Amino acid sequence: MKAMTRIAVLALLFIFAFGVAYAQLANPKDAIKYRKSVMFLILQHFKPMGEVVKGKAPYDKNAFSANADAVAKLAALPYEAALVPGSDKGDTTMTSAALEKPDRFKKALASFKSETSMLASAANTGDIDKIKAQFGKVAQNCSACHKQFRKK
Amino acid sequence: MKAMTRIAVLALLFIFAFGVAYAQLANPKDAIKYRKSVMFLILQHFKPMGEVVKGKAPYDKNAFSANADAVAKLAALPYEAALVPGSDKGDTTMTSAALEKPDRFKKALASFKSETSMLASAANTGDIDKIKAQFGKVAQNCSACHKQFRKK
Repeated sequence: MKAMTRIAVLALLFIFAFGVAYAQLANPKDAIKYRKSVMFLILQHFKPMGEVVKGKAPYDKNAFSANADAVAKLAALPYEAALVPGSDKGDTTMTSAALEKPDRFKKALASFKSETSMLASAANTGDIDKIKAQFGKVAQNCSACHKQFRKK
Repeated sequence: MKAMTRIAVLALLFIFAFGVAYAQLANPKDAIKYRKSVMFLILQHFKPMGEVVKGKAPYDKNAFSANADAVAKLAALPYEAALVPGSDKGDTTMTSAALEKPDRFKKALASFKSETSMLASAANTGDIDKIKAQFGKVAQNCSACHKQFRKK
């Protein structure tokens, strides 16, 4: 019962911190699955762009744009809704820092959203130099966020 | 070796049919995981909207809009890229019809994308009657597509 009360209080604090009640992700297990699903999907679209940028695959404007758009859409999901108390335990690679420093996590997410959106715009121009430069910024963004919020 | 050739030919036919080479999803296992991930994420945002529409949860404009936007973004992913030959077998609920009638599947996807985008617009108005009506259309869309392309 005490544990339940503690979870309820944490959940309320969480809701207060984010301003929105995402009741659907109140369950740590679903929150973990939510994050893993988003990360898997992002990777499926990110990897082939990386191959092009590294010169390992030919550049195709439409295919690259489709991947960049998909990543930008996935980065703009309300991912912070998956910051459910307790979801840093169990089958997850998220560090507790994401729950303890939600402002820092939200800032990292906002930056990811903005950099991926700029990559989608760059992809639309078809200018491979612009694309490569912006892809590099997105990749740096991934690393910086993982350094803080992903377990080694 | 023969099986490999058959897969390669099917993959080429697939690439031809969709006009874009999504090499990253050439693997049936990843394609299944891709579809399951998208479906799981859609469900997490769809369920709480359903609760509101059924009067089981209070209507909160921002929370509803966040969910409607998320579903619209997920519906606009290049989901047809996950139609990899052979991905109707194994741990999947997708019927072979999706691979055999790609045009019909693409039409269903286009309709899903358009109806969910209209739901996101309706959610922005804050007009609960409009929202309920459009939510109903999206739900009908889910059923119609599942009837054709999801195993019972």
